[in-house]
Amino acid sequence: MTEHSLWRFSRAIHLALNDNSTSDLESILDDNIEWTIYGPIDMFGFFGTHRGKPAVLDVVRKIADTIRLVRFDREAVMLGDDTAASLMRYSLTAKDSDQSISVRLAHFAQFKAGRLSNMRVIVDTFDLVEQALGRPIHLPKIA
Amino acid sequence: MTEHSLWRFSRAIHLALNDNSTSDLESILDDNIEWTIYGPIDMFGFFGTHRGKPAVLDVVRKIADTIRLVRFDREAVMLGDDTAASLMRYSLTAKDSDQSISVRLAHFAQFKAGRLSNMRVIVDTFDLVEQALGRPIHLPKIA
Repeated sequence: MTEHSLWRFSRAIHLALNDNSTSDLESILDDNIEWTIYGPIDMFGFFGTHRGKPAVLDVVRKIADTIRLVRFDREAVMLGDDTAASLMRYSLTAKDSDQSISVRLAHFAQFKAGRLSNMRVIVDTFDLVEQALGRPIHLPKIA
Repeated sequence: MTEHSLWRFSRAIHLALNDNSTSDLESILDDNIEWTIYGPIDMFGFFGTHRGKPAVLDVVRKIADTIRLVRFDREAVMLGDDTAASLMRYSLTAKDSDQSISVRLAHFAQFKAGRLSNMRVIVDTFDLVEQALGRPIHLPKIA
């Protein structure tokens, strides 16, 4: 049985994030990839939708410039023929402040001929924003 | 082929949210269900982890008291034997203010003998918080 494309992508993205080495990642991205991380683009320019291999590589380099990956736990994973979804928890360090950040996210990936053609990532963004700010945001109780 | 448990759960949860009718939902929840929606519990008491059928039904009733479901789009779905994950976009109305709210979330569900035993939901919480507040939160540009 062939290895699922998710695992090759997973190794490549973590290599890109930790060692600034994007050649493996480049080879697994479809030319027409569409890549979205939902979140406040005012705070982090790498959020939002990016299309095409150069734009996505640029996004990944920006993330690598901003954070260092400490560890990750894949809390759930679902694999289809050409699809994958994971629930993940990342422990990161902000490079400029050395601050520890823990973030939970879910990704939905689609592959085409073994290459990543679509990636959508949902992040628990309020928790991330508070940690990046280094202080809690006061919220009224609504329910 | 038997219908996947996700679809029965989906009908039951939407019936519970729209019509305050929880009997179908009650029958599809495992007694030892663990249910987590990651998000700021200061603002919405139905966020966080809840265990056991009565606690989960209470959470769903609280959500139903707070919002009215207008529509939802299932943007991605993955089905395993006893598991399911979806990427969803909900259009809601806040019941107290009549305000429209749009929220994107991902859920990972596990079923045991056709009953929901574990549910974890990741929400794009910053976007939700801003909409619930009715005003943007100023964020510094970090990257």
